[in-house]
Amino acid sequence: MSVSILDMSMSLDGYVADHDDYLGGADGERLHAWAAAPQAATTHRFEQEWGAAGAIVAGRRTAELMDHWGGSHNGAPIFVPSHRPPPPAARWGYPLVTYVSDGIESAMAQAKAAAGERDVQVRGGYVAQRALEAGVLDEVQIHQVPVLLGGGRRLFDVLPSLVELEVLGVIDTPEATHIRYRVRR
Amino acid sequence: MSVSILDMSMSLDGYVADHDDYLGGADGERLHAWAAAPQAATTHRFEQEWGAAGAIVAGRRTAELMDHWGGSHNGAPIFVPSHRPPPPAARWGYPLVTYVSDGIESAMAQAKAAAGERDVQVRGGYVAQRALEAGVLDEVQIHQVPVLLGGGRRLFDVLPSLVELEVLGVIDTPEATHIRYRVRR
Repeated sequence: MSVSILDMSMSLDGYVADHDDYLGGADGERLHAWAAAPQAATTHRFEQEWGAAGAIVAGRRTAELMDHWGGSHNGAPIFVPSHRPPPPAARWGYPLVTYVSDGIESAMAQAKAAAGERDVQVRGGYVAQRALEAGVLDEVQIHQVPVLLGGGRRLFDVLPSLVELEVLGVIDTPEATHIRYRVRR
Repeated sequence: MSVSILDMSMSLDGYVADHDDYLGGADGERLHAWAAAPQAATTHRFEQEWGAAGAIVAGRRTAELMDHWGGSHNGAPIFVPSHRPPPPAARWGYPLVTYVSDGIESAMAQAKAAAGERDVQVRGGYVAQRALEAGVLDEVQIHQVPVLLGGGRRLFDVLPSLVELEVLGVIDTPEATHIRYRVRR
């Protein structure tokens, strides 16, 4: 059965990027340094998981910043929930990119149908929170980096209600504590 | 050598208590449920550590809410950094409680001197952040509880600069992921 996963590198104080640049900047580089560390086995494991996704649900900002990963994510289709019309590139140039105007539940249902038995990777903090609120996020993979950034964008801002998680597993390396959670319903 | 430690139960979204009540409430209970779980060995280990502290540095709000733990913390002296005069109970009734008016560095120096070879436990999120900023917090023990509370008081709000940590050890239980960090300087 397809599982939807949010995979994020996060500081101990909960930040996933600096204020200005959701995907990069000095803080972004610090957060993702673990993936370049000599812990090749750990990095390789997560790279394989990212590469094996059967579909992507991406926030519009992330999708546009990444130019829709050139039209697919390692060949996997990309679903972008958005109430606004898709940008021209997504409308005409990218047959595997689908803008979904009727909500996150619909986007996730389409992504899971496309993914078959494979996982759906969720890209972007905002869309991940909407998926969590809508009850369509199944797992959260946090790479908790031993740093306090002091400010920036938090992955989890205010949620409408308490969400219980279950720890599925922990991989402990000097560069990051990798914790996998299942969302309880 | 005495080490200063902040020990906190925290949700994955970074909260250490609900909005109204720093020490309790439903969220507080949820955060501390791990200590009542049948993982007796883990709980016992941290209880021993708390009990073995040679001195306490406590924030004023925490100290007053806890009535200064009845005058001492298992016999250990308590130092409270505060610019305001101490409350009557601390002035007349509690010889082991010292209000320190010249800052967190001074409070920590007095606590370390009193603790000798034993550790100094830091109590309270506000005072812990001031200790971190002043460079007098040595270690952070986080009990990361698998829950998203959605709102409340965060342990780490905005810090003036990036703080690098070092993972000293991880204890992985279903109830909480216990991560010990050293503050790098």
